[in-house]
Amino acid sequence: MFEMDHVAIPCPDIARGVAYYVENFGADVLYQDATWAFLKLGQGKLALVTPAQHPPHIALGVDVQTLEIAARKAGKTVDKHRDGTQGIYIDDPHGNVVELICYPDGETVYK
Amino acid sequence: MFEMDHVAIPCPDIARGVAYYVENFGADVLYQDATWAFLKLGQGKLALVTPAQHPPHIALGVDVQTLEIAARKAGKTVDKHRDGTQGIYIDDPHGNVVELICYPDGETVYK
Repeated sequence: MFEMDHVAIPCPDIARGVAYYVENFGADVLYQDATWAFLKLGQGKLALVTPAQHPPHIALGVDVQTLEIAARKAGKTVDKHRDGTQGIYIDDPHGNVVELICYPDGETVYK
Repeated sequence: MFEMDHVAIPCPDIARGVAYYVENFGADVLYQDATWAFLKLGQGKLALVTPAQHPPHIALGVDVQTLEIAARKAGKTVDKHRDGTQGIYIDDPHGNVVELICYPDGETVYK
Protein backbone atom coordinates (compact mmCIF):
# COMPACT_ATOMS: atom_id res chain seq x y z
CA MET A 1 0.00 0.00 0.00
CA PHE A 2 1.46 3.30 -1.15
CA GLU A 3 -0.15 6.50 0.10
CA MET A 4 0.66 10.08 -0.92
CA ASP A 5 2.40 11.42 2.17
CA HIS A 6 3.91 14.77 1.27
CA VAL A 7 5.54 16.83 -1.44
CA ALA A 8 8.79 18.74 -0.96
CA ILE A 9 9.19 21.88 -3.06
CA PRO A 10 12.22 24.12 -3.46
CA CYS A 11 12.44 27.10 -1.12
CA PRO A 12 15.74 28.97 -0.82
CA ASP A 13 14.55 31.00 2.21
CA ILE A 14 12.82 28.67 4.66
CA ALA A 15 11.71 31.36 7.12
CA ARG A 16 10.11 33.39 4.34
CA GLY A 17 8.46 30.35 2.80
CA VAL A 18 7.05 29.19 6.13
CA ALA A 19 5.67 32.67 6.84
CA TYR A 20 3.96 32.71 3.44
CA TYR A 21 2.21 29.35 3.86
CA VAL A 22 1.22 30.09 7.46
CA GLU A 23 -0.14 33.58 6.75
CA ASN A 24 -1.89 32.82 3.46
CA PHE A 25 -3.08 29.25 3.91
CA GLY A 26 -3.12 28.61 7.65
CA ALA A 27 -0.40 25.96 7.56
CA ASP A 28 0.66 24.39 10.86
CA VAL A 29 4.42 24.04 11.37
CA LEU A 30 5.41 20.48 12.27
CA TYR A 31 9.15 21.15 12.02
CA GLN A 32 11.41 23.97 10.90
CA ASP A 33 15.15 24.63 10.70
CA ALA A 34 17.33 26.63 8.32
CA THR A 35 17.41 23.92 5.64
CA TRP A 36 13.83 22.65 5.57
CA ALA A 37 10.38 22.86 7.08
CA PHE A 38 7.48 20.43 7.36
CA LEU A 39 4.01 21.96 7.22
CA LYS A 40 0.54 20.51 7.70
CA LEU A 41 -2.26 21.72 5.43
CA GLY A 42 -5.48 19.99 6.40
CA GLN A 43 -4.73 16.26 6.38
CA GLY A 44 -1.83 16.68 3.95
CA LYS A 45 1.77 17.70 4.42
CA LEU A 46 4.04 20.07 2.50
CA ALA A 47 7.80 20.25 2.92
CA LEU A 48 9.84 23.30 1.95
CA VAL A 49 13.45 22.39 1.19
CA THR A 50 16.63 24.25 0.32
CA PRO A 51 17.61 22.36 -2.84
CA ALA A 52 21.33 22.33 -1.98
CA GLN A 53 20.57 20.27 1.18
CA HIS A 54 17.44 18.28 0.27
CA PRO A 55 16.19 17.25 -3.15
CA PRO A 56 12.65 18.31 -4.04
CA HIS A 57 10.52 15.15 -4.19
CA ILE A 58 7.18 13.51 -3.70
CA ALA A 59 6.84 11.05 -0.83
CA LEU A 60 4.69 7.95 -0.62
CA GLY A 61 3.99 6.57 2.82
CA VAL A 62 4.59 2.84 3.29
CA ASP A 63 4.82 0.34 6.11
CA VAL A 64 8.15 -1.13 7.23
CA GLN A 65 7.74 -4.36 5.29
CA THR A 66 6.86 -2.59 2.04
CA LEU A 67 9.84 -0.26 2.50
CA GLU A 68 12.23 -3.18 3.01
CA ILE A 69 10.92 -5.01 -0.06
CA ALA A 70 11.17 -1.86 -2.20
CA ALA A 71 14.68 -1.14 -0.93
CA ARG A 72 15.88 -4.62 -1.84
CA LYS A 73 14.26 -4.32 -5.28
CA ALA A 74 15.93 -0.94 -5.87
CA GLY A 75 19.29 -2.07 -4.45
CA LYS A 76 19.16 0.67 -1.80
CA THR A 77 19.87 0.78 1.92
CA VAL A 78 17.07 2.20 4.07
CA ASP A 79 18.03 5.59 5.52
CA LYS A 80 17.10 6.22 9.17
CA HIS A 81 16.48 9.93 9.65
CA ARG A 82 16.95 12.03 12.79
CA ASP A 83 13.19 12.66 12.98
CA GLY A 84 12.58 8.91 13.35
CA THR A 85 11.30 8.29 9.85
CA GLN A 86 12.91 5.75 7.55
CA GLY A 87 13.02 5.83 3.79
CA ILE A 88 14.67 5.50 0.43
CA TYR A 89 14.82 7.82 -2.55
CA ILE A 90 14.27 6.49 -6.04
CA ASP A 91 13.88 8.14 -9.44
CA ASP A 92 10.82 7.81 -11.62
CA PRO A 93 11.36 7.40 -15.40
CA HIS A 94 11.30 11.18 -15.92
CA GLY A 95 13.76 12.24 -13.25
CA ASN A 96 11.28 13.03 -10.50
CA VAL A 97 12.51 11.93 -7.09
CA VAL A 98 10.14 9.63 -5.19
CA GLU A 99 10.74 9.04 -1.50
CA LEU A 100 9.23 5.98 0.11
CA ILE A 101 8.79 6.97 3.74
CA CYS A 102 7.83 4.98 6.80
CA TYR A 103 6.75 6.42 10.17
CA PRO A 104 7.41 3.56 12.61
CA ASP A 105 4.88 3.62 15.46
CA GLY A 106 6.13 5.63 18.41
CA GLU A 107 9.55 6.24 16.88
CA THR A 108 9.12 9.58 15.11
CA VAL A 109 8.92 13.12 16.43
CA TYR A 110 5.58 13.58 14.64
CA LYS A 111 3.32 11.18 16.53
CA MET B 1 -9.57 26.04 5.22
CA PHE B 2 -6.80 24.99 2.84
CA GLU B 3 -6.16 21.28 2.40
CA MET B 4 -3.37 19.61 0.41
CA ASP B 5 -5.22 18.21 -2.60
CA HIS B 6 -2.63 17.06 -5.11
CA VAL B 7 0.77 17.67 -6.60
CA ALA B 8 1.45 17.86 -10.34
CA ILE B 9 4.90 16.78 -11.45
CA PRO B 10 6.48 17.01 -14.91
CA CYS B 11 6.12 13.95 -17.13
CA PRO B 12 6.91 14.26 -20.84
CA ASP B 13 5.45 10.81 -21.65
CA ILE B 14 2.11 10.44 -19.87
CA ALA B 15 1.48 6.82 -20.86
CA ARG B 16 4.90 5.75 -19.62
CA GLY B 17 4.53 7.73 -16.41
CA VAL B 18 1.08 6.28 -15.69
CA ALA B 19 2.36 2.75 -16.30
CA TYR B 20 5.22 3.33 -13.87
CA TYR B 21 3.03 4.58 -11.01
CA VAL B 22 0.40 1.91 -11.59
CA GLU B 23 2.86 -0.99 -11.79
CA ASN B 24 5.20 0.08 -9.00
CA PHE B 25 2.89 1.78 -6.52
CA GLY B 26 -0.61 0.53 -7.31
CA ALA B 27 -1.93 3.94 -8.39
CA ASP B 28 -5.56 4.15 -9.56
CA VAL B 29 -6.12 6.19 -12.72
CA LEU B 30 -8.80 8.86 -12.21
CA TYR B 31 -8.18 10.51 -15.59
CA GLN B 32 -5.69 10.22 -18.43
CA ASP B 33 -5.13 11.87 -21.82
CA ALA B 34 -2.03 12.70 -23.85
CA THR B 35 -1.24 15.87 -21.88
CA TRP B 36 -1.91 14.87 -18.29
CA ALA B 37 -3.10 12.17 -15.93
CA PHE B 38 -4.66 12.22 -12.48
CA LEU B 39 -3.77 9.32 -10.21
CA LYS B 40 -4.97 8.27 -6.78
CA LEU B 41 -2.44 6.92 -4.29
CA GLY B 42 -4.22 5.97 -1.09
CA GLN B 43 -6.20 9.03 -0.02
CA GLY B 44 -3.92 11.40 -1.94
CA LYS B 45 -3.72 12.41 -5.58
CA LEU B 46 -0.81 12.81 -7.97
CA ALA B 47 -1.03 14.52 -11.35
CA LEU B 48 1.46 13.87 -14.15
CA VAL B 49 1.65 16.81 -16.56
CA THR B 50 3.42 17.60 -19.80
CA PRO B 51 5.06 20.89 -18.82
CA ALA B 52 4.35 22.54 -22.18
CA GLN B 53 0.59 22.16 -21.58
CA HIS B 54 0.24 22.29 -17.80
CA PRO B 55 2.56 23.89 -15.25
CA PRO B 56 3.84 21.63 -12.47
CA HIS B 57 2.24 22.81 -9.23
CA ILE B 58 0.91 21.94 -5.81
CA ALA B 59 -2.83 22.23 -5.28
CA LEU B 60 -4.71 23.17 -2.14
CA GLY B 61 -8.37 22.22 -1.94
CA VAL B 62 -10.76 24.99 -0.91
CA ASP B 63 -14.49 25.65 -0.81
CA VAL B 64 -16.19 28.00 -3.29
CA GLN B 65 -16.28 30.94 -0.92
CA THR B 66 -12.60 30.65 0.00
CA LEU B 67 -11.73 30.40 -3.69
CA GLU B 68 -13.67 33.55 -4.54
CA ILE B 69 -12.09 35.51 -1.71
CA ALA B 70 -8.60 34.35 -2.69
CA ALA B 71 -9.25 35.18 -6.35
CA ARG B 72 -10.31 38.72 -5.52
CA LYS B 73 -7.30 39.17 -3.26
CA ALA B 74 -4.97 37.93 -6.03
CA GLY B 75 -6.72 39.90 -8.76
CA LYS B 76 -7.49 36.68 -10.68
CA THR B 77 -10.55 35.33 -12.44
CA VAL B 78 -11.64 31.84 -11.34
CA ASP B 79 -11.02 29.29 -14.11
CA LYS B 80 -13.75 26.70 -14.71
CA HIS B 81 -12.17 23.50 -16.00
CA ARG B 82 -13.65 20.84 -18.26
CA ASP B 83 -13.54 18.28 -15.45
CA GLY B 84 -15.87 20.47 -13.38
CA THR B 85 -13.28 21.80 -10.96
CA GLN B 86 -12.69 25.50 -10.48
CA GLY B 87 -9.47 27.20 -9.50
CA ILE B 88 -6.82 29.83 -9.74
CA TYR B 89 -3.05 29.61 -10.03
CA ILE B 90 -0.84 31.83 -7.93
CA ASP B 91 2.91 31.97 -7.33
CA ASP B 92 4.53 31.53 -3.96
CA PRO B 93 7.50 33.82 -3.11
CA HIS B 94 9.98 31.33 -4.59
CA GLY B 95 8.34 30.69 -7.95
CA ASN B 96 6.42 27.55 -7.03
CA VAL B 97 2.96 27.47 -8.59
CA VAL B 98 0.09 26.97 -6.12
CA GLU B 99 -3.33 26.05 -7.46
CA LEU B 100 -6.34 26.70 -5.28
CA ILE B 101 -8.87 24.12 -6.44
CA CYS B 102 -12.53 23.64 -5.64
CA TYR B 103 -14.62 20.52 -6.37
CA PRO B 104 -18.20 21.85 -6.36
CA ASP B 105 -20.59 19.15 -5.12
CA GLY B 106 -21.98 17.09 -7.97
CA GLU B 107 -20.32 19.18 -10.67
CA THR B 108 -17.03 17.35 -11.25
CA VAL B 109 -16.26 14.14 -13.09
CA TYR B 110 -14.52 12.78 -9.97
CA LYS B 111 -17.41 12.41 -7.54
